[in-house]
Amino acid sequence: MNIYGDTNSGNCLKVKWVCDYLARPYHWIEVDTIKGGSRTPEFLKLNDWGQVPTVELDDGRALAQSNAIIRYLAAGSDLIPGDAYRAAQMDAWMFWEQNSHEPYVAVCRFHTVYLGKPVSELDPNLVKRGYVALGQLEQHLAGTRFLVGDTISLADVSLLAYTRVAHEGGFDLDRHPAVRRWVGEAEKTLGLQPAR
Amino acid sequence: MNIYGDTNSGNCLKVKWVCDYLARPYHWIEVDTIKGGSRTPEFLKLNDWGQVPTVELDDGRALAQSNAIIRYLAAGSDLIPGDAYRAAQMDAWMFWEQNSHEPYVAVCRFHTVYLGKPVSELDPNLVKRGYVALGQLEQHLAGTRFLVGDTISLADVSLLAYTRVAHEGGFDLDRHPAVRRWVGEAEKTLGLQPAR
Repeated sequence: MNIYGDTNSGNCLKVKWVCDYLARPYHWIEVDTIKGGSRTPEFLKLNDWGQVPTVELDDGRALAQSNAIIRYLAAGSDLIPGDAYRAAQMDAWMFWEQNSHEPYVAVCRFHTVYLGKPVSELDPNLVKRGYVALGQLEQHLAGTRFLVGDTISLADVSLLAYTRVAHEGGFDLDRHPAVRRWVGEAEKTLGLQPAR
Repeated sequence: MNIYGDTNSGNCLKVKWVCDYLARPYHWIEVDTIKGGSRTPEFLKLNDWGQVPTVELDDGRALAQSNAIIRYLAAGSDLIPGDAYRAAQMDAWMFWEQNSHEPYVAVCRFHTVYLGKPVSELDPNLVKRGYVALGQLEQHLAGTRFLVGDTISLADVSLLAYTRVAHEGGFDLDRHPAVRRWVGEAEKTLGLQPAR
């Protein structure tokens, strides 16, 4: 299996972490999206959205969208709750991540890390909505070890990706002690080096 | 089962359509979100995101996030492909909907329908990105009957919700003949009255 990804992108790292955690072999192919690496004719044949991560299975079929990819790769593993209701709670967090967290927390970091914009020049509306998302995570994580109960799931993988590096986009995680506690536990469980 | 929803909201209608299609009984409870109906203390006990749709199962447990809800309710039905790869393609469209379609196509319509803003005063960046999403749908649907092959799936339910009413947010669907063809087929398959 080939993973086309950018090692600075949280969305791409989700796929790497799941493969590493499940000991699934893969070949990582680094793509420089800023230089148009995901918009070449060859790449668009794999994924006509022109986005990383994209996974190319051993039979040549491709899959797109980070959360859909990890849901596919982790099927049958302990990263997806066996109980249907808990799996639906996991899905809810993953859809929320794409709609209400990534567009603010990840996009602020994109502006600082990829485009070199100073934190002081970030769009205040993006920053405000990023803090709303972090506040909602804080409220939930104050009462639970992981997002869906006591064991790690793809919901944690998905939300960890950009939350652990939120400070790179100017967010102050020290205001969110439960989120910081959870970041540390999720990193440790996945075998990652702490991001800060 | 109770569905807390707003009949003007595509996200809420997804849940209604799936229940109607699968002949699953439910009780619809209309919530006026503009008047704060999803922010009352009682409502926040069901869903601390304070959003509709929210589903309350017969045992009292609640579920949030439209796409997670329909994925739960449709488990084992023909709305989810039995093949894991095709189910992952369905998921990819559903995550894309929340990240790259709904924030533009639905949000423009929210400004016109809910807030009464004239189309001419919509944020040009939202309009532009909405057309990018509609263009990507057009490109894909020019080569396939439904989003994942020849049969309807939750991907179609999810993307239909705001695409069929995109004109209410100022989008010209006449530029997208494959999308219009698909809207008609999906509406017919789901037993809906045409939106226009």
